[in-house]
Amino acid sequence: MEYGIISRIDYINALELTEKIIEYMNQFTDILVEESTAEHLDLSNAIDSAPLEEMNVDTLITVGGDGTILRALQKLDAAIFAVNMGRVGFLTEVPGEQVEEHLGRLLEGDYIIEQRSKLRTLKNNEEFADAVNEAVIHTAQISKIRDFNIFVDDVLADNIRADGLIIATPTGSTCYAMSAGSPIIDPRIQAHVVVPIAPYKLSTRPMVVPASSEIRIEEVEGRESVLVIDGQHEEKIGDDVLHFTRSPKTARFIRFQRNFYERVREKFLR
Amino acid sequence: MEYGIISRIDYINALELTEKIIEYMNQFTDILVEESTAEHLDLSNAIDSAPLEEMNVDTLITVGGDGTILRALQKLDAAIFAVNMGRVGFLTEVPGEQVEEHLGRLLEGDYIIEQRSKLRTLKNNEEFADAVNEAVIHTAQISKIRDFNIFVDDVLADNIRADGLIIATPTGSTCYAMSAGSPIIDPRIQAHVVVPIAPYKLSTRPMVVPASSEIRIEEVEGRESVLVIDGQHEEKIGDDVLHFTRSPKTARFIRFQRNFYERVREKFLR
Amino acid sequence: MEYGIISRIDYINALELTEKIIEYMNQFTDILVEESTAEHLDLSNAIDSAPLEEMNVDTLITVGGDGTILRALQKLDAAIFAVNMGRVGFLTEVPGEQVEEHLGRLLEGDYIIEQRSKLRTLKNNEEFADAVNEAVIHTAQISKIRDFNIFVDDVLADNIRADGLIIATPTGSTCYAMSAGSPIIDPRIQAHVVVPIAPYKLSTRPMVVPASSEIRIEEVEGRESVLVIDGQHEEKIGDDVLHFTRSPKTARFIRFQRNFYERVREKFLR
Amino acid sequence: MEYGIISRIDYINALELTEKIIEYMNQFTDILVEESTAEHLDLSNAIDSAPLEEMNVDTLITVGGDGTILRALQKLDAAIFAVNMGRVGFLTEVPGEQVEEHLGRLLEGDYIIEQRSKLRTLKNNEEFADAVNEAVIHTAQISKIRDFNIFVDDVLADNIRADGLIIATPTGSTCYAMSAGSPIIDPRIQAHVVVPIAPYKLSTRPMVVPASSEIRIEEVEGRESVLVIDGQHEEKIGDDVLHFTRSPKTARFIRFQRNFYERVREKFLR
Repeated sequence: MEYGIISRIDYINALELTEKIIEYMNQFTDILVEESTAEHLDLSNAIDSAPLEEMNVDTLITVGGDGTILRALQKLDAAIFAVNMGRVGFLTEVPGEQVEEHLGRLLEGDYIIEQRSKLRTLKNNEEFADAVNEAVIHTAQISKIRDFNIFVDDVLADNIRADGLIIATPTGSTCYAMSAGSPIIDPRIQAHVVVPIAPYKLSTRPMVVPASSEIRIEEVEGRESVLVIDGQHEEKIGDDVLHFTRSPKTARFIRFQRNFYERVREKFLR
Repeated sequence: MEYGIISRIDYINALELTEKIIEYMNQFTDILVEESTAEHLDLSNAIDSAPLEEMNVDTLITVGGDGTILRALQKLDAAIFAVNMGRVGFLTEVPGEQVEEHLGRLLEGDYIIEQRSKLRTLKNNEEFADAVNEAVIHTAQISKIRDFNIFVDDVLADNIRADGLIIATPTGSTCYAMSAGSPIIDPRIQAHVVVPIAPYKLSTRPMVVPASSEIRIEEVEGRESVLVIDGQHEEKIGDDVLHFTRSPKTARFIRFQRNFYERVREKFLR
Repeated sequence: MEYGIISRIDYINALELTEKIIEYMNQFTDILVEESTAEHLDLSNAIDSAPLEEMNVDTLITVGGDGTILRALQKLDAAIFAVNMGRVGFLTEVPGEQVEEHLGRLLEGDYIIEQRSKLRTLKNNEEFADAVNEAVIHTAQISKIRDFNIFVDDVLADNIRADGLIIATPTGSTCYAMSAGSPIIDPRIQAHVVVPIAPYKLSTRPMVVPASSEIRIEEVEGRESVLVIDGQHEEKIGDDVLHFTRSPKTARFIRFQRNFYERVREKFLR
Repeated sequence: MEYGIISRIDYINALELTEKIIEYMNQFTDILVEESTAEHLDLSNAIDSAPLEEMNVDTLITVGGDGTILRALQKLDAAIFAVNMGRVGFLTEVPGEQVEEHLGRLLEGDYIIEQRSKLRTLKNNEEFADAVNEAVIHTAQISKIRDFNIFVDDVLADNIRADGLIIATPTGSTCYAMSAGSPIIDPRIQAHVVVPIAPYKLSTRPMVVPASSEIRIEEVEGRESVLVIDGQHEEKIGDDVLHFTRSPKTARFIRFQRNFYERVREKFLR
């Protein structure tokens, strides 16, 4: 087992906790530290570090919020042990104050792996890093709507004039997509949800589409828009054709107890 | 092939069209007429009739709107050839004025059968007719909310204080459930959606649950409510336990051309 | 100054607090106890009691939640000193545990009176008790929608097929109406809001109408519905004509500090 | 009476109709043509033209959609005779094909003036052109939410994390604000509505505030956002303080018959 760690670097408490985790882990095993995280730590012992994209580890400990996880998963494919040190924490699992107990269980293999499906985005034929949560297409000019044709398996499913569209996985259904009106989708369901942002036609509703279907989206007049994947990767688009499908890969999260609905109740539906 | 027919009886145009359909069909085959429909017809020739629950036919021609179809499917299990003579027509397929052409295709077998999953409802251990669209649980006292615990596979998924809850199939997601905020769910997705009606907690969202999961609902204080299945069957409930699962049976609709999204575009998203 | 008191009688803590309030008040002044409240108290001293509709007091102390206040205001017109002993408390002001301090301020006149506009309902020409929150018109048959014409100052403003309609004051905009989609309306605005419950036409939106306008509602086919005022008074309706106007009277609440937005923040937007 | 005219210049049918209007008007009176409109016309006779901001006219004929009207009203203060040649037409009054009849009534004074209130925006102490519809504050980084404090008359009314906020007049309540969830607000009501775009807190609701109140909005961390007024004027903002109040001026529209609700029914609630 190869272990790695990444922390948000703008929050001193996250960095301090990261130092403790490294010291704890070093009693038992090596741990590779993400490069910019390493630069912000204050450790007496030498540590191994590498840029995110070169971290060839089995398990990545993330110390931060959902953003830290999403950023890591854009660059590497590892099981995520997610310590919550952020404001938004729907993907995170371990509260900062209980980290030592859970690290013990991690080292003993006393956990389960939860697999979450990912969304693949193609712009024309260019492929981007998969999304754990969502891809967003949004007008590049605030308060100038765009006109989208949405095809499901080559059939025109809807024409939507809106600020933008969100194409989300079940995991993403409880994140940004939900702010725009998505339902909660149980992650066991093989589906994607298309959610309009501020649609002109008031009767427009989110659309839950089989993950096995291909969703194709075209901006009718090819005007300037922005594509954002998991809030991390941003890309200009115009008269491009966007395809969305289920990725052959999954995101893997190390879980210790709770099921999806306990998580929803606890973290979200306040 | 055994054919049957049922018409709404409160609309003279539907009855007249029913007479024409019977005359057309009688040129080629027998057709069994639902009893109360038969009583409202004005036909010179003798016709065979039977109560709905005794109509042992392969194909049922329904002349009316969605209500006529739902009423029929509460009592028998046949492929539905649905002629639209109603205001609400999401399940219907054939416009009244094009019925002869489609009857020809029906007799020649030139059509496809679309299968739609159904929802099974158990009150304590009593089983009701399956729902094509939805089961509704609603306070029996207008403007007095109820307090529901919702369990998914025995895990408390949410506690919702609301006027009521709708548990809908994908087919039902575009009917009553949609008025209460359901997304559009592609009927190929194996799921049910739980939609609250006027929930007290403003952050409550519809929840899309695998059809393979068991949904259990209990009114916390056991106060008087009403259970309605497909707008047809009504049942008083109090401190009963309600279970919802996928039915082992499906509803079958005779379709001539359009796919789900064309149907959605055409009939619904106006 | 004549004082009265009413308590919810189904909650022992509310009754106990009511006893303490009576004892406290009796040190300084008389206090008239609502009849059914009096029957549930366990006081050594003799108390004066009267039915709600005969309580001719200037100030009524209510011990309970919003329901207790709304019930009292259906029957009498007094300034309300609202002690919160209920789950739902948007109209209430004084937390149960701080009641003595606030009674002191009440007796010294150290408070302000907040006036809230009320809604008058006429069925044909029959007048009901005014609503502080809302009037609800709802189908009497669960999951059978009704077809309403809504006129504003004799102009057809909309035709809505829905389970029901809520006509709310600004005070009511944050109560039941909000569960059905109402915006928050600042109580200084002279307006009523018409909010549909589960409307068939998905583009339907709540409508904010001047309080000086007359809203007239007719069920197109005159089918059986229910009219409920403030969750208290229930009335069957069919092919009746309902008129809604601003009442010439106001509801008056004794307030000690917070303004509307502090109240909204604290109690509602959780 | 001084008359002027402006047309959208990207739509040949609008330009052709503009030519006809000028010829018709020239039989009776002079008409000043907006400069860029004039450059796109193909007229045999000499015409007077001027830039929009120098057109000192009493009545402006606009040929286009709502965008043409909003652009004109950013620069001049005239009664608007609005000919509909656009897709979006909530402010427009006269269908293109009935223009001659209505020009006759215009010249005879056979019309009414409808006044609509406007919204004034101050950034720190800098004042912009008033909005007829709305001011929008929106994150400058797509899918990175912002954190807004909203004060009403110096009281913190809400803290909202969202993509953006819309502050709309009643006129604007049926335009962009409605796509984000605004109710319909009768234009006789003296109010502004604050509508969040994709709010993180799911319980957030639009807020209707008296037009006489001052709304102050501050982005908590002063991060980069964009302010857009009536879809016309765009402005970068960061740690600025924005104030919104009712403008002392009104927009004036020439109307021939219909009242607000007929307009809503006809153009909007489809």
